[in-house]
Amino acid sequence: MTEPTAASPSPPLRAVDLIVQKAAGERLSREALRWLVHGYTAGTVPDYQMAAFLMAVCWRGMTEEETADLTQVMVESGRQLDLSDIAPVVADKHSTGGVGDKTTLVLAPLVAALGVPVAKMSGRGLGFTGGTLDKLESFPGLRVELSVEEFRAILRRWGIVIAGQSPELAPADGKLYALRDVTATVESIPLIAASVMSKKLAAGATHLVLDVKCGSGAFMKTRAEAERLAALMVAIGQRAGRTTVALVTAMDQPLGMTVGNVLEVEEAIATLRGEGPPDLVELVIELASALLAAAGLAPRPEARERCRRLLASGAALTKLADLVAAQGGDRRAVDEPGRLPHAPLERPLLAPQAGFIQAIAADQVGRVAMQLGAGRQRKGDPIDHRVGLRLLRKVGDAVRAGEPIALLSAARESDATALLPSLLAAYRFSETPPPPQPLILSTYGSVD
Amino acid sequence: MTEPTAASPSPPLRAVDLIVQKAAGERLSREALRWLVHGYTAGTVPDYQMAAFLMAVCWRGMTEEETADLTQVMVESGRQLDLSDIAPVVADKHSTGGVGDKTTLVLAPLVAALGVPVAKMSGRGLGFTGGTLDKLESFPGLRVELSVEEFRAILRRWGIVIAGQSPELAPADGKLYALRDVTATVESIPLIAASVMSKKLAAGATHLVLDVKCGSGAFMKTRAEAERLAALMVAIGQRAGRTTVALVTAMDQPLGMTVGNVLEVEEAIATLRGEGPPDLVELVIELASALLAAAGLAPRPEARERCRRLLASGAALTKLADLVAAQGGDRRAVDEPGRLPHAPLERPLLAPQAGFIQAIAADQVGRVAMQLGAGRQRKGDPIDHRVGLRLLRKVGDAVRAGEPIALLSAARESDATALLPSLLAAYRFSETPPPPQPLILSTYGSVD
Repeated sequence: MTEPTAASPSPPLRAVDLIVQKAAGERLSREALRWLVHGYTAGTVPDYQMAAFLMAVCWRGMTEEETADLTQVMVESGRQLDLSDIAPVVADKHSTGGVGDKTTLVLAPLVAALGVPVAKMSGRGLGFTGGTLDKLESFPGLRVELSVEEFRAILRRWGIVIAGQSPELAPADGKLYALRDVTATVESIPLIAASVMSKKLAAGATHLVLDVKCGSGAFMKTRAEAERLAALMVAIGQRAGRTTVALVTAMDQPLGMTVGNVLEVEEAIATLRGEGPPDLVELVIELASALLAAAGLAPRPEARERCRRLLASGAALTKLADLVAAQGGDRRAVDEPGRLPHAPLERPLLAPQAGFIQAIAADQVGRVAMQLGAGRQRKGDPIDHRVGLRLLRKVGDAVRAGEPIALLSAARESDATALLPSLLAAYRFSETPPPPQPLILSTYGSVD
Repeated sequence: MTEPTAASPSPPLRAVDLIVQKAAGERLSREALRWLVHGYTAGTVPDYQMAAFLMAVCWRGMTEEETADLTQVMVESGRQLDLSDIAPVVADKHSTGGVGDKTTLVLAPLVAALGVPVAKMSGRGLGFTGGTLDKLESFPGLRVELSVEEFRAILRRWGIVIAGQSPELAPADGKLYALRDVTATVESIPLIAASVMSKKLAAGATHLVLDVKCGSGAFMKTRAEAERLAALMVAIGQRAGRTTVALVTAMDQPLGMTVGNVLEVEEAIATLRGEGPPDLVELVIELASALLAAAGLAPRPEARERCRRLLASGAALTKLADLVAAQGGDRRAVDEPGRLPHAPLERPLLAPQAGFIQAIAADQVGRVAMQLGAGRQRKGDPIDHRVGLRLLRKVGDAVRAGEPIALLSAARESDATALLPSLLAAYRFSETPPPPQPLILSTYGSVD
């Protein structure tokens, strides 16, 4: 038996010891993570120690509790919005990103029209196509760089707001992300989860719905990875007292029929009018109903039905127009999409053979869209909102040889000529129809 | 079949891509490693990318060929000595370090006296006790910071020289080591091997003998790790065209009977007079004979016999005196060790019980020596050459209760009082003698 000893002050923390612990596969306490992350944000823990730590996390992983702790200390690194004076329930939605993913432009107005305010901050899209902010900026004059005060005011007045990520929120994430990007430490599921969730938690929504995509066009290539990420983010949200649900969804072919900023906005408008493509409609209804059910507003089947009816009625389109107008855009463009800028030329891709479309590789389609100018390779690159492509047939559809299967919207004839063969390379054809693949793969969080 | 294409210039290398490759467990080419290491040395690859790369190496390891390539590009980062104008065979020896390890002070004069010139550069000891340089500096006036020109001149004139590591040799190693130290990336066998061998290869010796220690008092705690390191260093040396042999040796109890700088110098002198303790004598003979046999100067049994006879004759002591004098020390101290500085007081550790000594934990003894002032905790800390301890009994010896088993040489009574209990904590006693443990565990390289 040992005698109880007087409480002694904790020894001072040293970054190198925390790296040793993580490299040995141990878990760090919240206090240790707080010291490390806040020291890094303040500049007292240098880049090279944080880089070694991040690689050790890629190696050894983090427990769920540890990841929740990391997320929390990242939240603490900056301002934390409290929206409870505006509404008791405020929803937010996040997608890990895919090709043709205009879901937010449909889901946010739909949920807002159902009476749940939606307050979303987004990052800028890097990679294949623009992100939600870029798509919104297809509306001439629309501003996404809002102050926190503007963000709150628009939410209060209109029940819907979508803005760029405020640098005041979770600044540790911005600094860590920049370091991860140059040290090959991006692809760690705990680090991805903490990055996403720190921004969501700081932005103040009470209810979160997450769309974790997997497949060739997504960041997560395998279903197993996507499911780990989804489960982890739901756990982080719930530990932080936010109602969180996540759907793991397929991203092998592009979502919907369009890829490119204005083209996707037009498709979102059509969907809000009840004329959406089946996969986008299904995804929006599944995500929105999961959110409503998790919020206790309706049982899931009823929530689905309410979403379906509202989409079909076209009544949620007003909320998109409200959003556009509130953020400085021209609301008339919602009713008359002809007012949006359009590419000067459109060229068809012809089916090289008869049969069935077996696959349309989303990543390859994304590369074509980026090369047309719809996305950005480097931060700050300009994007051309007009360009992109329209799919006329999707996976499982029968095609005749020589029939147009897609239309490329380009700024220049030379782009179209150069990229039609690249687009064709995304397709695989077969003589028999491929087996149908589900869009919704799994669900995390309590939605029933 | 694909058509042959015109040779295209290699794409430019990017550090982040090399980190991605290593984190994915791929092997890097020599060209890639050269670009990375030379860029780091030149300052164009930043610390944080190198830190992430080093942690990825800790995670994924390196192949033998890759480690040899890394070593080679580290060698290329600085000056490379060519000693072939001085002698066709020049020997060097390296130990991974242990408690009471004065082997170099015996081995170098012995090998030089056998006609093989010895040119050794050493790093400063960190940790338990001083390194070889600190031990040599026990001789008042002796200089270990030699220019390359002095190093060559002393080697040419006396056939023996031991100097501090020249900053002109393998500067990449110095910069990398400093980074590894603060990013918890020290304990990677490929990185350890490349660090040691880059300095050895740059220093120009043709024949290398390596003492890789394992056990509680060594950097490598397990025999398996030590054997991996030994095999890897031998492979690196041989790929670089140097005759290289390595012995894996036990470091569970201190080597010999003394720990501390002057005390170890005195023991080395006694050993060169034919009065050494059995374990130190055995280790010196095994290392020296392996070197001689690998160099083709004598078959191993004959080499052992020549070493044994020379040690017993005391004739090699002259070579130590030559070394001391050539580097500015007083050669009379070799014959009259009373001229060396001694601690003012000596206090005995008494056996608390009768029986057999079952273990003397080398790391614990090392900590006691460091706390007495014999080693340094931080780079640049001063050390007290006088202090340390003398073991009167070793593992396997019988002791009577109350009999002195060790003598502590201290600068202050308070140190002795405080540290005698810590020294006692290093001992374990048993009622029956422990089974004898071999000192030499395994051998790498061609020595027969």
